[in-house]
Amino acid sequence: MHIFDQVIIDVNLATLDNTVDAAYGAITNGAIALKDGKIAWLGKQQDLPDFDALSTPVLSAKGKWMTPGLIDCHTHLVFGGSRAQEFEMRLQGVSYQEIAAQGGGIISTVKATRSASTETLFVAANKRLQTLFKEGVTTVEIKSGYGLDLENELKMLEVAQLLDQHHPINVQKTFLGAHAVPPEFKDRADEYIDYVCEVMLPEVSERGLADAVDAFCEGVGFSNAQTRRVFEKAKALGLPVKLHAEQLSNLAGAQLVAEFSGLSADHIEYLDESGVKAMADAGTVAVLLPGAFYVLRETQLPPLALLQQYQVPIAISTDFNPGTSPICSLKLMMNMACTLFRMTPEQVLEGVTKHAAAALGLHDRGILKVGMNADLALWDIEHPAELAYQYGVNPLSDLWIEGQSMVIR
Amino acid sequence: MHIFDQVIIDVNLATLDNTVDAAYGAITNGAIALKDGKIAWLGKQQDLPDFDALSTPVLSAKGKWMTPGLIDCHTHLVFGGSRAQEFEMRLQGVSYQEIAAQGGGIISTVKATRSASTETLFVAANKRLQTLFKEGVTTVEIKSGYGLDLENELKMLEVAQLLDQHHPINVQKTFLGAHAVPPEFKDRADEYIDYVCEVMLPEVSERGLADAVDAFCEGVGFSNAQTRRVFEKAKALGLPVKLHAEQLSNLAGAQLVAEFSGLSADHIEYLDESGVKAMADAGTVAVLLPGAFYVLRETQLPPLALLQQYQVPIAISTDFNPGTSPICSLKLMMNMACTLFRMTPEQVLEGVTKHAAAALGLHDRGILKVGMNADLALWDIEHPAELAYQYGVNPLSDLWIEGQSMVIR
Ligand SMILES: [Zn+2]
Ligand SMILES: [Zn+2]
Repeated sequence: MHIFDQVIIDVNLATLDNTVDAAYGAITNGAIALKDGKIAWLGKQQDLPDFDALSTPVLSAKGKWMTPGLIDCHTHLVFGGSRAQEFEMRLQGVSYQEIAAQGGGIISTVKATRSASTETLFVAANKRLQTLFKEGVTTVEIKSGYGLDLENELKMLEVAQLLDQHHPINVQKTFLGAHAVPPEFKDRADEYIDYVCEVMLPEVSERGLADAVDAFCEGVGFSNAQTRRVFEKAKALGLPVKLHAEQLSNLAGAQLVAEFSGLSADHIEYLDESGVKAMADAGTVAVLLPGAFYVLRETQLPPLALLQQYQVPIAISTDFNPGTSPICSLKLMMNMACTLFRMTPEQVLEGVTKHAAAALGLHDRGILKVGMNADLALWDIEHPAELAYQYGVNPLSDLWIEGQSMVIR
Repeated sequence: MHIFDQVIIDVNLATLDNTVDAAYGAITNGAIALKDGKIAWLGKQQDLPDFDALSTPVLSAKGKWMTPGLIDCHTHLVFGGSRAQEFEMRLQGVSYQEIAAQGGGIISTVKATRSASTETLFVAANKRLQTLFKEGVTTVEIKSGYGLDLENELKMLEVAQLLDQHHPINVQKTFLGAHAVPPEFKDRADEYIDYVCEVMLPEVSERGLADAVDAFCEGVGFSNAQTRRVFEKAKALGLPVKLHAEQLSNLAGAQLVAEFSGLSADHIEYLDESGVKAMADAGTVAVLLPGAFYVLRETQLPPLALLQQYQVPIAISTDFNPGTSPICSLKLMMNMACTLFRMTPEQVLEGVTKHAAAALGLHDRGILKVGMNADLALWDIEHPAELAYQYGVNPLSDLWIEGQSMVIR
């Protein structure tokens, strides 16, 4: 007789497991059993093995659909201040130059983040995390990158760590010191990269505050050569890398991150075929960020057909940040990836589960399969396509993280 | 000494009242007093008149911002079924013709709505209404138009009436019998219009089930001449009119609805200058629907500059419906109106309050002013531009409808 902690019956499972031969890896009329925070069994309900029915909680899902808990693999969730008035000024016709001259843009967020206390940052970020949680998100990546000095980058990562400890969502921390050149290093980007590599990265690594290292490789960010230096240091410290690449132009960032066997190249509207090939060879995930595409009214689409041709896994994420994607909703990104990028609902669901897990180097979640973390979202829907199709009314019915049932109201 | 039912102090008021000379009609460090469901006093807190402080509840808003309750003036909130699988098929490359041949499109919603019980329709619509309510919406218009026969059009309007009675949101009901030609009148649109005018409209009017009459004037809907017949009948019955006009082409629907002193012309991407002039002369509101624009990946922008030049009031609404705008969020429409239409946050806020009220012919709400309904939304924000700028984290703190404090959790 099997011993389970929880059994869920009368459930339709969108496993997203390739070995299940059906759209969405679907197992209808299914059941799933949890043990020690993991999936211990799943399959057709009629095949559910004997278990101690008297001592095991059994929940009937009444025909609802279950998916892996959603994963938001690219966010800038910790920041101070708001850019609402800058948003308003732009729509009133004030030029970027003038806004920058008034201290707007990313540097305004850097100033607000530097001057914010750990507690202020935590309280604001916790609300954002809770918003994602209510949508069925169970793992969130959070980047630093608005501190841009040792003290404040550490502060941001510590806030991310506190969120991981105090909120049921699993938080992955990414060091993004090479996000922008801070004012005190104006016109001395190479010296700032020295500081990132020689001062910040070793300290962040020493304190165990980063699961990965990211950079912004772009004309308005850092060059390919500067990014390489960051990656070499990360490699020396044993940290995996990922990259904001080819968002506004093509600097061959994808090839660079692939050369370092990077986890992901993110944005990639301007990615070309050689970059796609390099990613495919390296197993680097493409992370598409439709929120930033929407906000910036970008017209250059990411190369979906090439990515699919070379079988590069495609993840979808919010890029939630105060400047170019102030939209804290992974569910909305699912709709936008369909509407703006013409991805199918199934591709999009894979993009916020298994491919998002791969973009974070996590192999214990993102599909429904025996041995995986019991991170589970139960949805009051008739068909999994509804998750990307409709927006607004929240279809989330229940949520488990590592086997623990969550209160989502 | 004044007698009030409720006083709210330490509040910033975005009155949207033109007579207040500031952006957003803002009164900072303000106070507002309610009596008998109306706004009895508002102004600077220092000017708050004497009132019986012992017997009157006083709430400190702690510096939060108050706006009029939001108004969603164009929805198709009552319907049966889902179009998720049609959405998926389109993204899988299935042609419109094939989807139509398989019974897709609006007719699939008509079939599902006809076969749904009043209770089923009510339960689904109530969830959607509750979603809008949690965003700060206090008045919602709901159209019929998926019944397309007497019994089912009445059923839809009765569901809207039940929602009005059972949900604190104020529901305005619009008869949209001329939404599409039902299958039983295939290729006999003129005969269907006879049926709308001679059978449905009199009965709907007799039962008091419509506050207004709408039609879909379009190549795929009804001609200008057919629409005119509906409007003439509505006029004879004393019902105001509004119109789905110039969405996909220009059929001079705006001129037509203006000729009947109509409340609004909605969509209007293809509206031209003569249509704008006609609307301006008639006081007809322009209702822009960025959700449908987004879903259809429309590239023809509504003529914002002309509308502003001729001072046509511009409202913003969800057009929430299962086909072309399955997005139940007025807050998201505020962001989309800024992002896609380049409206300012202030214009957008006016668009979901005072101009939305005008689009429904309601003169008792939509601005904060003495004598207006005490439909009030209190927001935990630093600046009113945040309402359109950020999305996802819900900033709604408190809500009143006709002076009654609501439970919004
Ligand atoms: Zn980013
Ligand atoms: Zn409509």
